[in-house]
Amino acid sequence: MSKSKDNELVFLPLGGSNEIGMNLNAYGYGPADNRQWVVVDVGVTFGDNSTPGVDVIVPDPTYLEGEDILGIVLTHAHEDHIGALGWLWPRIKAPLYATPFTAFLIREKLRDAGLLDRVTLHEVPLGGTIDLGPFQIEMVTITHSIAEPNGLAIKTPLGTVLHTGDWKIDNDPIVGERTDVDTIKRLGDEGVLAMVCDSTNVFQEGVAGSEGDVKTALAELIGGLKGRVAVGCFASNVARMDSVIRAAEAAGRRVVLAGRSMHRITAAAKSVGMLSDLQPFLSEEQAKHWPADEILYLCTGSQGESRAALSRVAEGNHPFIKLGPGDHCIFSSRVIPGNELAIGRLQDTLSDRGVRIYTDKDHPGIHVSGHPCREELREMYRWARPKIAVPTHGMRRHLAEHAQLAKDMQVPEAVTPRNGDMVRLAPGPAAIIDEVPSGRLFVDGGMLVEEAGEALRERRHAASNGVLIVSFAMDKRGKIVSDIDVRGLGLPGDEDSPLGDILDTLAERVEQVVRGLKGDALEDEMVVEQAVARALKKASQSVWDRRPIVETIILRL
Amino acid sequence: MSKSKDNELVFLPLGGSNEIGMNLNAYGYGPADNRQWVVVDVGVTFGDNSTPGVDVIVPDPTYLEGEDILGIVLTHAHEDHIGALGWLWPRIKAPLYATPFTAFLIREKLRDAGLLDRVTLHEVPLGGTIDLGPFQIEMVTITHSIAEPNGLAIKTPLGTVLHTGDWKIDNDPIVGERTDVDTIKRLGDEGVLAMVCDSTNVFQEGVAGSEGDVKTALAELIGGLKGRVAVGCFASNVARMDSVIRAAEAAGRRVVLAGRSMHRITAAAKSVGMLSDLQPFLSEEQAKHWPADEILYLCTGSQGESRAALSRVAEGNHPFIKLGPGDHCIFSSRVIPGNELAIGRLQDTLSDRGVRIYTDKDHPGIHVSGHPCREELREMYRWARPKIAVPTHGMRRHLAEHAQLAKDMQVPEAVTPRNGDMVRLAPGPAAIIDEVPSGRLFVDGGMLVEEAGEALRERRHAASNGVLIVSFAMDKRGKIVSDIDVRGLGLPGDEDSPLGDILDTLAERVEQVVRGLKGDALEDEMVVEQAVARALKKASQSVWDRRPIVETIILRL
Repeated sequence: MSKSKDNELVFLPLGGSNEIGMNLNAYGYGPADNRQWVVVDVGVTFGDNSTPGVDVIVPDPTYLEGEDILGIVLTHAHEDHIGALGWLWPRIKAPLYATPFTAFLIREKLRDAGLLDRVTLHEVPLGGTIDLGPFQIEMVTITHSIAEPNGLAIKTPLGTVLHTGDWKIDNDPIVGERTDVDTIKRLGDEGVLAMVCDSTNVFQEGVAGSEGDVKTALAELIGGLKGRVAVGCFASNVARMDSVIRAAEAAGRRVVLAGRSMHRITAAAKSVGMLSDLQPFLSEEQAKHWPADEILYLCTGSQGESRAALSRVAEGNHPFIKLGPGDHCIFSSRVIPGNELAIGRLQDTLSDRGVRIYTDKDHPGIHVSGHPCREELREMYRWARPKIAVPTHGMRRHLAEHAQLAKDMQVPEAVTPRNGDMVRLAPGPAAIIDEVPSGRLFVDGGMLVEEAGEALRERRHAASNGVLIVSFAMDKRGKIVSDIDVRGLGLPGDEDSPLGDILDTLAERVEQVVRGLKGDALEDEMVVEQAVARALKKASQSVWDRRPIVETIILRL
Repeated sequence: MSKSKDNELVFLPLGGSNEIGMNLNAYGYGPADNRQWVVVDVGVTFGDNSTPGVDVIVPDPTYLEGEDILGIVLTHAHEDHIGALGWLWPRIKAPLYATPFTAFLIREKLRDAGLLDRVTLHEVPLGGTIDLGPFQIEMVTITHSIAEPNGLAIKTPLGTVLHTGDWKIDNDPIVGERTDVDTIKRLGDEGVLAMVCDSTNVFQEGVAGSEGDVKTALAELIGGLKGRVAVGCFASNVARMDSVIRAAEAAGRRVVLAGRSMHRITAAAKSVGMLSDLQPFLSEEQAKHWPADEILYLCTGSQGESRAALSRVAEGNHPFIKLGPGDHCIFSSRVIPGNELAIGRLQDTLSDRGVRIYTDKDHPGIHVSGHPCREELREMYRWARPKIAVPTHGMRRHLAEHAQLAKDMQVPEAVTPRNGDMVRLAPGPAAIIDEVPSGRLFVDGGMLVEEAGEALRERRHAASNGVLIVSFAMDKRGKIVSDIDVRGLGLPGDEDSPLGDILDTLAERVEQVVRGLKGDALEDEMVVEQAVARALKKASQSVWDRRPIVETIILRL
């Protein structure tokens, strides 16, 4: 690929363009061999049952290491936008820029990672600007499901990019301002070269709905209930917390925060003047003997997370909160894909205790999404009128559908890069001009490791197939001089074939195999190991119809 | 609990009443110490990522072993109703009763399990009757998402139970008859003591919808497409297969079956005269060079199963079927909870190849559920007018909601047993009179093992935490006389701390620990092992912040 010596404006997603989550975007300006960069968002995604032992996954920033990064701008405080800072900042060191609520939570994250003293974090006011070399960045207030969400207008000598961040159009966002439509229209009038835009809900017709409507629905629902009420929601949705708290107050209920992130986000919200003019919260201890009709628990764990408040309540393990017949649990939250079974189990366990469950399926209106549906996307294209549409924040399917929608809105060009695809936005027509290393790094045992790394591969293999360990000592001539110790991990036995008997038989088999080897072979560790391993694999196949990991440990005396 | 000496009619769910799937129901008649039983359905449920190495889960039949079981009636051929026969029949030996299509598939299952010669399988005609001691059973034709679904009218001297099986009301079921409303109404007129009824869709208002409407929707959709068309659906839904095949024929497309169960079910369907008067299928090989506009693939794998046809097509690994830009994939299927991510990945991978995806979300009407929604449940209660409602086939939440719906329909009594709860239906008011052993058995390494068994527990632990193995030889006085071999399975290293270095350090630590032990302790294997394991666990915690399984193998010479 020929490298341009002229100034170019490029967009490089390293996360967020093959998935929903783990956002890491970079904008580069300059000639190919001397670009200056601005990074937008440094987020995580979360592991699941298919990645045992791996809870956190981050984008691979290798390409940006050593590049001239002028700054890292964080659009908002969701984990998929700021969660990887503690892991990746040491590799892409640059000053951080964020609005106050986001900055509060970033500071916590840096403190946990021991980075607070090393990182410069600039607090930018809402609607403020950041000057970074060729990049003039304007924070554009939008609405989303968190306090202080921002889009970015990134102005360069080659044109302006509108990076929407996560957004929807909420005309009654409860906390914070409405989407700054005037600014977006003004940017459109001035000319938007490219819009890099949220694709999450591109398969949903209509609009996402307003926090104001949720507030009304929650107030109505909670107002009509007797007995204890628990509400599960994302703590980061300060508007939702505000709505629940006010619904509780109107219903004569005191609010108890249950779960660490409820306290964490409350502190962040209060630091920027939100959640003020409210009755003080009751502590969990105080609430223990409070009248049932006068209490409301605001709980973490709406995704069925096993250690969060709601699961502990459901399992009867919560030290202070008990729910039972006549009580209520409202899920004012969405189901994150992959969490369906865990949430189902949580709701079922609560239901089994006699707790009545409310979700947005049976009570539409108690939750709305924070991402734009198709009608909102169309509206945004009408306002911004970009020359190039760059769908992001979606799986491939979402990006393709979003590109189609943009074309239907008469956007002249659309490009749907994968993570690692470098998109030239200007000069000339938009095009993918390079493919750089990209991927996911897994946080495994406190280390950042390759996605396809050996350790997880082995753990997965062990999870499905178990481990067979054989150890014995040999003298120099290849005579076995100890017991043959055969152990199974994760391998079953039953009444007909107790595990002990199976392992004894395998030990005999090992002895046979070794006895069957001739002089030279016995002196070569590798040969003995391989013969033993081969025999045990074969035997396992016939006993368990599976191939465990076989570890052969021969101690040579 | 006092045991009645009078004749009683009891209902005992051993599966299906804490979950959707794994149905095993028993009806008992007689005094407490001398009951005769009829078993209805013997189904499986499937493992998931939380049960690595366990694909199949069956109900624990222990309580019924050795009881006087007169017969096992299978209502229909879905795996959650017949799938456990191969595993459990040897424990609850009794003659089987099923209608012809179901019997065909049961025979295959028994053949696979090597049981065909040992089991008596009676084929019962649709609407036929079975006389089993005090139980007079009438097969009641219903509609569902499979060929030949049956409810059971179980008549006893103490009253009639209507066991609905899985059902919905479909007035245009495409294959088979409509729900036999006359019979159900007649049973209602004669008096239904109890109705044991499907709860799957109790949270859905309205009705499930008809296969006839799906047929129209699919014909319209497929009729308008150019390029290759693949349709993913459950093979067992013969009506759906019929609709797809006829839509293909109308659009001038030849049909190719892709996936083993498509062939299996087609054979079963043809054996009972279904799927007749159709053009012969093309083989995959024949279709390879067929014109794109004249082909339709009917595929397994709509749940994202990695080895099924659709996944292999998506990954580009299918030997004969290739899809690309301009081609289409229609998901005429539901999303089974737990499969969301796998299905999402499958659809995304296909989309990434340029294949257009159609699901019932964006194209309502191309799939309907096979289970009754609330309006259908109400209708059934109006027809059958049972004295007792016994919701089944649902999680606790579903059963509770269903009991409430039954009460709203003025059913005098409702009881929601858990698996293992024995419900007395007569005489006297319905009540749970006993709790018998119940649970789930896991098929693990070809053996039936306890759900909470050691093997799976170890594999799960290994999956999240890895395994550390240390082995060395000691002489009789406790002197280490070999190398200390330390190995990690599933434990990572990184650039700063390569795994080899970590393991070397751990080996040194083991040597220190052993050297630190005094004479007596050195002679006691257990003491040495525990000291070493303790030290390695502690060290692992500080290196990886986790607690691997530690296997300490000391070979005493």
